[in-house]
Amino acid sequence: MGKPNLKAELVSVGTELLLGEIVDTNAAHMSQRLAEIGVDVHFRHTVGDNLGRIVSVLEPALSRSDAVLICGGLGPTQDDLTRESIAQVTGRPLRPDAAAQQHLREFFARRGYTATPNNLKQATVPEGGRLLDNTCGTAPGVLVELEGAGGSPGSVLIAVPGPPPEMREMMRREVIPYLAGRQGGPPIAVHTRVLRLADIGESSLVAEIDDIIREQTDPTIAPYASPGEVKLRLATKSASDDEAARRLDAMEARLRERIGRHIYGVDDETMEVAAGAALRAAGATVAVAESCTGGLVASRITDVPGSSDYFLGSVVAYANEIKQRVLGVPAETLEAHGAVSEETALAMATGVRGLYGADYAVATTGIAGPGGGGDGKPVGLVYLAVADAEGAVCLRQNWPGTREQFKRRVSQYALNLLRKRVLGIEVEG
Amino acid sequence: MGKPNLKAELVSVGTELLLGEIVDTNAAHMSQRLAEIGVDVHFRHTVGDNLGRIVSVLEPALSRSDAVLICGGLGPTQDDLTRESIAQVTGRPLRPDAAAQQHLREFFARRGYTATPNNLKQATVPEGGRLLDNTCGTAPGVLVELEGAGGSPGSVLIAVPGPPPEMREMMRREVIPYLAGRQGGPPIAVHTRVLRLADIGESSLVAEIDDIIREQTDPTIAPYASPGEVKLRLATKSASDDEAARRLDAMEARLRERIGRHIYGVDDETMEVAAGAALRAAGATVAVAESCTGGLVASRITDVPGSSDYFLGSVVAYANEIKQRVLGVPAETLEAHGAVSEETALAMATGVRGLYGADYAVATTGIAGPGGGGDGKPVGLVYLAVADAEGAVCLRQNWPGTREQFKRRVSQYALNLLRKRVLGIEVEG
Repeated sequence: MGKPNLKAELVSVGTELLLGEIVDTNAAHMSQRLAEIGVDVHFRHTVGDNLGRIVSVLEPALSRSDAVLICGGLGPTQDDLTRESIAQVTGRPLRPDAAAQQHLREFFARRGYTATPNNLKQATVPEGGRLLDNTCGTAPGVLVELEGAGGSPGSVLIAVPGPPPEMREMMRREVIPYLAGRQGGPPIAVHTRVLRLADIGESSLVAEIDDIIREQTDPTIAPYASPGEVKLRLATKSASDDEAARRLDAMEARLRERIGRHIYGVDDETMEVAAGAALRAAGATVAVAESCTGGLVASRITDVPGSSDYFLGSVVAYANEIKQRVLGVPAETLEAHGAVSEETALAMATGVRGLYGADYAVATTGIAGPGGGGDGKPVGLVYLAVADAEGAVCLRQNWPGTREQFKRRVSQYALNLLRKRVLGIEVEG
Repeated sequence: MGKPNLKAELVSVGTELLLGEIVDTNAAHMSQRLAEIGVDVHFRHTVGDNLGRIVSVLEPALSRSDAVLICGGLGPTQDDLTRESIAQVTGRPLRPDAAAQQHLREFFARRGYTATPNNLKQATVPEGGRLLDNTCGTAPGVLVELEGAGGSPGSVLIAVPGPPPEMREMMRREVIPYLAGRQGGPPIAVHTRVLRLADIGESSLVAEIDDIIREQTDPTIAPYASPGEVKLRLATKSASDDEAARRLDAMEARLRERIGRHIYGVDDETMEVAAGAALRAAGATVAVAESCTGGLVASRITDVPGSSDYFLGSVVAYANEIKQRVLGVPAETLEAHGAVSEETALAMATGVRGLYGADYAVATTGIAGPGGGGDGKPVGLVYLAVADAEGAVCLRQNWPGTREQFKRRVSQYALNLLRKRVLGIEVEG
């Protein structure tokens, strides 16, 4: 029993998606998770909050696919029609689920609210179906198994909530294990590995490994760029985790031989994770002094669970007076060189290191824009410094772009600078 | 002639989209541009590089929609099947286009390459159709007008290339003017307005304006929730900008009468923008002391251009010793009440206010998780304080969720607390 490599279709529900007001990152996430267990997604659809149109998409999907996954439209409002659409397309009326209603009442009571009738609508389930626990929100998921011809296993309809954290958690806890079980046997899954690179641009990277990219068959190799970072995604299909790992290992080794010095992390190992791991291994602590990044470096460091083990804190010094009074940047330095200068960056790093009693410190000062350029200091100019017991070094960069891109890129670079200093890798200007 | 409000469907072609390797930002962009000229997108589909499956999506789309837009699959490789799919679904064979072939040959010659037969495949067009110039790449677009029943205008099939800059430019130069012309008359565009709310959950909001939502016809009203924030999206269709603004104004006024106390911003006016505007209007400055938010409050404040006018800086004090030594939280307070307590939050706010010489200060201290709970202080517990010359107040909240949700929600609440204090709005616990 079990059906290897289920065929699936995804349906995203929401008028705001069709209007282009939000980008459908949920669909990409769900697709990835399904690919990982070997479920083949053949079609994806997006449809507005309209009962007839949702049903018109579900009908052909159920007739040709083993699993139809719906995302969104499970909320408490009249716009939320996913439950009703499932009832209509399967011919199974909605029934209240006592346990789910109780769960919702308790959820609201814990927050000091009373569940409204709208909320309780979320605790209904199509006859013969079941609800999936939502551990981070109010809307439970829905799962209905349909009968195939002659009593054979038919397709399954699964609905998950639209808010991304709720969807992700429900996919991880409920949907993926369920579908993996339904497939039975070892599925031919897509196995991927992402190599994360620093200090190299996408086109230089592609030029450096041009021959490897040209020859690629299995694993496939695809480069992606985002502000301050380039990634290489390796992918291979295999029913065996070991075989897939062997192929990915071999390709990774080949790439590392060529461009290993640029690879700082693998898969979910972001720069804040890599920098944190280096600090943890060294048994060292870090403090941050931020001007142009405005707290983003500290915020990224503290996105990592357990970062309190090595992160002491940050001084965000936007005003010059704070750089002077709190971080101890000398007035003469600010006067002679300005806030955006090598001298100020170095003084900020050494200042916060002393103030916080940290082993390492990083500092950022630059012009995020759109205003503030001039005097030979253009928008996008930034100085980054890292300090430890041995001394301090500073790098000058120029990254024009939006304010958001600038902050992101500078924070990435600052974390990389910290990581390299802790690992004893030489810093190139 | 002309058909107001064309009904359209979008089809994104590419296996990498179905695998979730890239997020389909093109679809959102195309949807937005179409909504602006009043084209109603009813369905969106994503399909892999497979001729049969592309055709199976195009067939029903052409039968029910006035315009079907395809994005992607126009490249030179064997994976690129959009042209062949159009030929098959319309029954019109592909013919070479001499002008386009010449254009391609010149394009490659300028770059020192010779156009391959693969490249020249891009310069073929279904009989009776025409190619659309690609001003930033090699793949021309394709446009085929079909005949309706009895010689009436039928639907139109348009394909644009997948690389985002090429797609955007072709939409702007060719597709949007063409569809606007096909609609005739002034386009009936979708005009939207987003009201941003604080201190209310989605279900309470819906309960409070249930009658208005039930009666909605024009503008339509739809609620959306994200961590720490609920939004109400108003939308109306009109050929006149003034008329649309009048309708949106009237609905906004009606909603403000009922729930105006919860509306903090409109459209792009995020909480950091609203808090910054309040500070700017008051001619006041702010400093921040952050523990559990780890710099996110400061980072959000500094996401706003010009925030250096009112933001002095932040102290991120992750370690207790920093709370004590830099922010001046008394050792006895930490000892007696712990770092996550009302007393510590208040001492952090007043401490950073004094240190930075700011008019206002906000502070956060809580347990982001996943570790760190216990002792009657669960993960998700947070204390937020705001201080000014009049004194300080503190609120206790409990928001279990992921680390990311927690940080986001606490930062939203802290900025709201600041905004309300500056505006003289009473803070409810």
